[in-house]
Amino acid sequence: MTKQELFGQIQAKKSYLCVGLDTDIQKIPTHLLKEEDPIFAFNKQIIDATHQYAVAYKPNIAFYEALGAKGWESLEKTLAYIPKECFTIADAKRGDIGNTSGLYARAFFDKNASGLDFDSVTVAPYMGEDSVTPFLQFDGKWVILLALTSNGGSRDFQTLAVGDEALYEKVLRTSQAWGSDEQLMYVVGATKADMLAHIRSIVPNHFLLVPGVGAQGGSLAEVSQYGMNSTCGLLVNSSRAIIYASSGEDFAQAAALEAQKVQLEMEQYLAAYL
Amino acid sequence: MTKQELFGQIQAKKSYLCVGLDTDIQKIPTHLLKEEDPIFAFNKQIIDATHQYAVAYKPNIAFYEALGAKGWESLEKTLAYIPKECFTIADAKRGDIGNTSGLYARAFFDKNASGLDFDSVTVAPYMGEDSVTPFLQFDGKWVILLALTSNGGSRDFQTLAVGDEALYEKVLRTSQAWGSDEQLMYVVGATKADMLAHIRSIVPNHFLLVPGVGAQGGSLAEVSQYGMNSTCGLLVNSSRAIIYASSGEDFAQAAALEAQKVQLEMEQYLAAYL
Repeated sequence: MTKQELFGQIQAKKSYLCVGLDTDIQKIPTHLLKEEDPIFAFNKQIIDATHQYAVAYKPNIAFYEALGAKGWESLEKTLAYIPKECFTIADAKRGDIGNTSGLYARAFFDKNASGLDFDSVTVAPYMGEDSVTPFLQFDGKWVILLALTSNGGSRDFQTLAVGDEALYEKVLRTSQAWGSDEQLMYVVGATKADMLAHIRSIVPNHFLLVPGVGAQGGSLAEVSQYGMNSTCGLLVNSSRAIIYASSGEDFAQAAALEAQKVQLEMEQYLAAYL
Repeated sequence: MTKQELFGQIQAKKSYLCVGLDTDIQKIPTHLLKEEDPIFAFNKQIIDATHQYAVAYKPNIAFYEALGAKGWESLEKTLAYIPKECFTIADAKRGDIGNTSGLYARAFFDKNASGLDFDSVTVAPYMGEDSVTPFLQFDGKWVILLALTSNGGSRDFQTLAVGDEALYEKVLRTSQAWGSDEQLMYVVGATKADMLAHIRSIVPNHFLLVPGVGAQGGSLAEVSQYGMNSTCGLLVNSSRAIIYASSGEDFAQAAALEAQKVQLEMEQYLAAYL
């Protein structure tokens, strides 16, 4: 999907919501456990209920991998079910030496090899340029590089001073030479909304994936005010607050209501800041 | 597997060789392609041919994941086939926020969930403590944390100065508070053998996984001289130089010869430096 197409979807749906499919067999409503593939049955209903409010879906790969080959099959069915106009993110946080990153790219981008063809994958920057570039060689696909994450551990290394800037700023600056804003986005934790204006000065044109709204805390208002650019430039993720809005048989309706609530708030911010 | 058990295996086999199972469907001998599961058929013969010379096996997870659910099944069969006295490493380079890392830990350590029960998994440090500790909560399992990798991109961030030390040194120092040398090892690229003496002064007692001998370059002699400690403290990996020693029907015998060559060299270094 191109940047322009993604922006077109954001304008059409008046939303920059990404729904995180952190689908845990131990948390889905119990009535689904009698289904042949409970994970897919859950995702299917969540997607049906939320896709008019969401421009992106982000399966968290750990949740599928924890179930082995069976989980991988649920992931494949889920991805195939997501409407084609939605942007898809494999939240995998991969990254390895060149030829190995090339294989991870095949795993998430090459349907003929793996059965999966996500639009994007999240990548960790620690191993540097040659661990990232193999993902950028797939036409129309995106890397979403970790810059500043929303967890406590982000303060262990990401915010340390490297010369006169923090490591995450160095990652933002260095990686811009690896690919354009048509193929590279950044993960920026919303709990650091005060840093967003500064981050925008380093990467004015890139899309940012903001994972920290909802269960991880963080304010959608602040993120939108300080993070939005002329093509919106934001995908704001919510996982648990939407998909586990109810643990009963009404989980899909409850998810739709939560997603709609976020979408309506986003519609206001798009009107105010775009 | 405990540290003492691993050292016992090293003494018994006079080897600290780890064979990397970077098994690529496009590189294995063509006569195997008629097998029901060519990847497993290849690995099975490699394991049969090399296990008397190797103390560890390291499937590179990307190679399996690139094949989707089918690859995951080949991985499960491969892991089950590796003799129990061998240390097993899921080279996955995972790392995410706490609850997600917990699921990756389940994926690689909890046989009941995923079908896999590796002894260890490689983890990337960028997201900090809470991305690593969930892996350390599994009894008898190990984290192998990336410190200094052997690829060109290691110079993008790992060797940058953070205060008065390099980022990879900071990772070594900070992470020692997260777990003991009975549950934590480090990835240290062999192409930086001159840095090994210095690294040993920071982590005198930890095992180091050295990925860079063979196709990635690096000298086994230097690594052994500067890296060995009183419990050996080294696992030196070789992937392509062993498993692709021949592309013909004699691939397993050729792999055995290569593995034996490395083992005989290691036997000398153990006699000299242990």
